[in-house]
Amino acid sequence: MRMVDLIAKKRDGKILSKEEIKWIIDEYTNNRIPDYQMSALTMAIFYQDMTDQEITDLTLAMAHSGEVVDLSSIEGIKVDKHSTGGVGDTTTLILAPLVASVGVPVAKMSGRGLGYTGGTLDKLEAIPGFKIELTEETFIRLVNESKVAVIGQSGNLAPADKKLYALRDVTATVDSIPLIASSIMSKKIAAGADAIVLDVTTGDGAFMKNIEDAKRLAKTMVRIGRLANRQTMAVISDMSQPLGEAIGNSLEVVEAIETLQGKGPADLLEMCYALGSQMVVLANKAKTVEQARLMLEEALSSGKALAKFREMIQNQGGDDSVIDHPEKILTAKYVFDLPAKQSGVITKLVANELGIAAMMLGAGRKTKEDAIDFAVGLKLCKKVGQSIEAGEPILTIHSNQPKEEIQEVIDLLYKNIEIGEDGAEPPLIHAIITE
Amino acid sequence: MRMVDLIAKKRDGKILSKEEIKWIIDEYTNNRIPDYQMSALTMAIFYQDMTDQEITDLTLAMAHSGEVVDLSSIEGIKVDKHSTGGVGDTTTLILAPLVASVGVPVAKMSGRGLGYTGGTLDKLEAIPGFKIELTEETFIRLVNESKVAVIGQSGNLAPADKKLYALRDVTATVDSIPLIASSIMSKKIAAGADAIVLDVTTGDGAFMKNIEDAKRLAKTMVRIGRLANRQTMAVISDMSQPLGEAIGNSLEVVEAIETLQGKGPADLLEMCYALGSQMVVLANKAKTVEQARLMLEEALSSGKALAKFREMIQNQGGDDSVIDHPEKILTAKYVFDLPAKQSGVITKLVANELGIAAMMLGAGRKTKEDAIDFAVGLKLCKKVGQSIEAGEPILTIHSNQPKEEIQEVIDLLYKNIEIGEDGAEPPLIHAIITE
Repeated sequence: MRMVDLIAKKRDGKILSKEEIKWIIDEYTNNRIPDYQMSALTMAIFYQDMTDQEITDLTLAMAHSGEVVDLSSIEGIKVDKHSTGGVGDTTTLILAPLVASVGVPVAKMSGRGLGYTGGTLDKLEAIPGFKIELTEETFIRLVNESKVAVIGQSGNLAPADKKLYALRDVTATVDSIPLIASSIMSKKIAAGADAIVLDVTTGDGAFMKNIEDAKRLAKTMVRIGRLANRQTMAVISDMSQPLGEAIGNSLEVVEAIETLQGKGPADLLEMCYALGSQMVVLANKAKTVEQARLMLEEALSSGKALAKFREMIQNQGGDDSVIDHPEKILTAKYVFDLPAKQSGVITKLVANELGIAAMMLGAGRKTKEDAIDFAVGLKLCKKVGQSIEAGEPILTIHSNQPKEEIQEVIDLLYKNIEIGEDGAEPPLIHAIITE
Repeated sequence: MRMVDLIAKKRDGKILSKEEIKWIIDEYTNNRIPDYQMSALTMAIFYQDMTDQEITDLTLAMAHSGEVVDLSSIEGIKVDKHSTGGVGDTTTLILAPLVASVGVPVAKMSGRGLGYTGGTLDKLEAIPGFKIELTEETFIRLVNESKVAVIGQSGNLAPADKKLYALRDVTATVDSIPLIASSIMSKKIAAGADAIVLDVTTGDGAFMKNIEDAKRLAKTMVRIGRLANRQTMAVISDMSQPLGEAIGNSLEVVEAIETLQGKGPADLLEMCYALGSQMVVLANKAKTVEQARLMLEEALSSGKALAKFREMIQNQGGDDSVIDHPEKILTAKYVFDLPAKQSGVITKLVANELGIAAMMLGAGRKTKEDAIDFAVGLKLCKKVGQSIEAGEPILTIHSNQPKEEIQEVIDLLYKNIEIGEDGAEPPLIHAIITE
């Protein structure tokens, strides 16, 4: 096989075979195919697309390009959840204990985040003492005993995807449905998932800027999930404004606790029910999503879900007193309001720009080397569709710098918040994709 | 400027500005843009095409990426000729003295060939003593005094094109009209041409397999020639069978001599008149191609053209006695016929495969390091459309190996020669493109 012939084949709209795709990924992972040939191929894929079978072959080849985590010693169906990214997305912190509390095993491997705020790992580390490095043995024991554990991704998972993603990033081939779908699915499969629930976000704060693209991506992943023998479901959710009210690491931990206590933001809870009930169904713990949702509502109202979160914190060495004393981690030196300059209805809270504001405060990393400040971030007081009076706070800013030093952040926030005459609450979930 | 943004721009079908194209070529030539970004861009160009202005900007940027030859001290309009490649293409050897003999300055810089036979330089070196390395001063003096000199390309002409072509070759982006057109035109402009005549070949033995593609390429080059201020004309010629009768270095030199003596193959002479009369017009030595053609016919029949060839050989240190004693360079150890296996009419002489047969005999280079055997090659006795009796020679093979050792070549030849019931001579020139 010669790479130049395979590039020409795809360039001309022909279908690559499983063997050809596997050969390409193996050779590329082992540096025997140069980047300049791979980028020509990815650009050809950008234009010519791939069949579901090709995307599945690509997904599996990338999943098997390095270690594949073996979770077979954990009882039950291991359902993983993935979000294509958002702002103020606290769902994993809530979902993990919530679905574990109804008996779904959650063996979650998470990464650190680049961007608006930290990743799930960073957020958990905002809890004093919480350890995200466990031995494989401890990890598996905890999931079998408690149904839930969250650890850092270690080892060499899907190295082909890592290498390819870095290349796509600098060659304008990120925005390609087959390449996005295979990238996400390969990582989930390498991490040992038996079934997958996807949160495909759409809107300003998301990777997919419109609903149609989000649906195409979701449908593609659901179909290749089936072809790869991993049952997959997806929720198309709105990310035109941040999800929930908190953007920041400690702030999101506290918001997760409040949500598990039944006093969190309605939209965030609704998202957790939507994603969680799919997880419960895929794990075979309920027959229908309606039935699953009732189980989750009961787990939340009875306090089982919160108890599971406490158990998870204790299991992993964390200080569970933060549940009753959130002030322990809300330690920003300065907390001040951002007042509305006029009265009206909130019509816009541009998610990605608010995310950037949080990052500028120190909540997220611009580069891998940056340190995260857990305490800082934003807490929304109002969301799109809600009325506000001039002078009332739109949000509070948690900062470790005085107001005078973060004028740039304040300007950015005002620029990306609109107050109009009237406006409606945007729909939270645009579609559920199951096939 | 960021390369990734420019890739995305072209990927989305937008037009790159002159400044952007110049920046890309400068940075790429100086190794500040990596191959993997350049190959993504060329694949995007493959799909999105370029406007005439973009191709012109690309051509000029590549032409100026290294040295640009200054021929201003040569009197008159310097017209260069370029062929997109063929088999048995002896036109340059004939055209150079032919048009020089009517006063058109021919300051020809030629390359060595990779492929079926050598390039023009290799063919000239089949003449004992012929020197292709002259100082710039001598070169210019010879053209001013004799109107003709042929030298090897020295220096660093269009290095961006060299680098880009090597990349396209391994990334399946060779077959792109804007990239082919800019590659050819950039080299001609860097070599100092004031005006350009193009022979765009089409058919099995050519780069452009069909007439429509050849026309598109020719029209593109004629238009960008005008935009770049280099008047350009093109002939679309047939290369389904070899041009003329000789394929091989010494064999083609002898064929050139015979043609200048008025006893060469009709098709080769016709091609030389077609291309030559355009050169004469572009050099402002005639008002119309008809007038130019009469001048060339007169130069040939009067012996002026042959005398010019002799003068050129003498000027460059070659042994001009080969003109009267071609046997001096036809020194292959074995010359034997390839007899027809049946009677009929020749319907096919697959040009590229006959070229490969000549290369296998030693007439061409497979890699840059290969040595060329000037003496070997093929000489056609019949061409497509001509009748043949079983046992009559189709062609003669000039070889330095005995028959037994070149059975593979003989098999290849028979496989690519067809004798049928009836067949017509293919048209030699499909179109003349002047705008």
